[in-house]
Amino acid sequence: MNEIKIFSPATVANVACGFDVLGFCLDSIGDYMVIRKTTEKGIKITKIEGFDLPYETEKNVAGVSAQALYNDLRPECGFEIEIHKKIKPGSGIGSSAASASGSVYGINELLGRPYDKTQLTYFAMQGEAIASQCEHADNLAPGIFGGFTLVKSTKPLNILSLPTPSDLFATLIHPQIEVKTVDSRAVLPKEVPLENAITQWANVGSLIHAFHTSNYELIRESLIDVIIEPHRKKLIPHFDDVKANTLRAGALGCAISGSGPSIFALCKGLETAKQVEKAMHNVYSKSGIAFETYVSKINIEGIKTVK
Amino acid sequence: MNEIKIFSPATVANVACGFDVLGFCLDSIGDYMVIRKTTEKGIKITKIEGFDLPYETEKNVAGVSAQALYNDLRPECGFEIEIHKKIKPGSGIGSSAASASGSVYGINELLGRPYDKTQLTYFAMQGEAIASQCEHADNLAPGIFGGFTLVKSTKPLNILSLPTPSDLFATLIHPQIEVKTVDSRAVLPKEVPLENAITQWANVGSLIHAFHTSNYELIRESLIDVIIEPHRKKLIPHFDDVKANTLRAGALGCAISGSGPSIFALCKGLETAKQVEKAMHNVYSKSGIAFETYVSKINIEGIKTVK
Repeated sequence: MNEIKIFSPATVANVACGFDVLGFCLDSIGDYMVIRKTTEKGIKITKIEGFDLPYETEKNVAGVSAQALYNDLRPECGFEIEIHKKIKPGSGIGSSAASASGSVYGINELLGRPYDKTQLTYFAMQGEAIASQCEHADNLAPGIFGGFTLVKSTKPLNILSLPTPSDLFATLIHPQIEVKTVDSRAVLPKEVPLENAITQWANVGSLIHAFHTSNYELIRESLIDVIIEPHRKKLIPHFDDVKANTLRAGALGCAISGSGPSIFALCKGLETAKQVEKAMHNVYSKSGIAFETYVSKINIEGIKTVK
Repeated sequence: MNEIKIFSPATVANVACGFDVLGFCLDSIGDYMVIRKTTEKGIKITKIEGFDLPYETEKNVAGVSAQALYNDLRPECGFEIEIHKKIKPGSGIGSSAASASGSVYGINELLGRPYDKTQLTYFAMQGEAIASQCEHADNLAPGIFGGFTLVKSTKPLNILSLPTPSDLFATLIHPQIEVKTVDSRAVLPKEVPLENAITQWANVGSLIHAFHTSNYELIRESLIDVIIEPHRKKLIPHFDDVKANTLRAGALGCAISGSGPSIFALCKGLETAKQVEKAMHNVYSKSGIAFETYVSKINIEGIKTVK
């Protein structure tokens, strides 16, 4: 095999209570990438469609992660990467993570899988770092492992693949505004009340338990973020309205996707997820802000080869 | 049935990373209580052995919780309570919780179980409150439910019964010193670094996942408390030594039991648990401080009727 086409899906990080550690993988939106073996050594980005991103390997997220794997393995060949970008950078659904993990996934497949998923995440983190100025894996892990993941630690990298209740769907709205990473970080406190931290780890624990027991009511009770959301929601117009209306429409929970501006809801059943999409639509169609919405099953497969 | 004898076991709250929410139930130490139906209405404490505790219903933890249940149900009879106390008050292994939950468990049994376990915990919290000046359930839940429990919230009371890996044992050391509740609270910060809180909820999440998957290595990696232990360990002589030596002896983790002074370790297998007991013994036998040690399987049954 000298060429592979892959689908690298969008992902939702944080998942309400699990700031910096939880994430899940979407199905209905993602990038396509073509990776090709070349006799010439090295990593080259040969095509970028969809958004204006740098072609220089060392400035491109997909290039940097591919180069990290390449430097580790030192294969006899080189690789070309084509990126057909569908996930808008800065949307809060793991655009850079899809690029960073897609290139290493594709190269690993072409070479007969010398690396495991945790190692691929490690390489992808090098790419993600140039996009977000820090090494984190909460959007990478769900793409590479599929389903829900918990990044237990990054040093050493320890990723847990969590069970996904079968009837869980996600609904998203992506308001077409820019929330600068620097702003979404700046609003976060360095210290948090112990009392709130306790509430948060009770929710993380119960959410994991709920996934293992397919307890949808417990998922509902656990998708609560008392630490981050109160600060970051100010950066997202109509957040409270969207949340209130999605919950009223039957969503199990609704919170900021990553650092925003996208907002996600988790729902039991496709029908509810579609009702929730309507509710999001209703709020934003009055706002004058352009937006996109998506309904997606939870993608338990993660990044995959396509034809 | 007019009389019941029950065993109300000791419990370990917090379980390293799960401050205020996690707990588990012991088997080899606990109080015995006899509850007897009487024609005279009301709740009476008729006998207390082992430790010097108040006989007045409204001042006795077991009395207050029993009275709370009694006031709610208003039965036609009354109850006498005998307490054969084995768990030393102030030991950090749920002495007051054993009293508070034992009386309501026994009365509920005699009346044909009108209440479920969560309701019993609610009544027991009223008793626990007079011992610890706040309503909490992290020692009550494991006694009443058995095994490992997560108190997701107290308002409303929501307790999750977690799976217990079958080869898990606990080893405890109880140094015979007094750590005043007021001191163990005073050393805790009101605010904690967000970074540490994230580490803590990653550990809580991974511990719950580890219980569900019987992953002992992950239990080992998750039994880490970066929030409370650094402050409270100063109140417990030789804590660092005990911890280092139990880990060297093979313990999966070692941390403060409740607010101390007891220290617990979790171990895979009885043999390791016994080695860990020796390690604890070695440290404290040189200290000049009197102590007791215990090895116990995790008690998945909780409080029970005995003959």
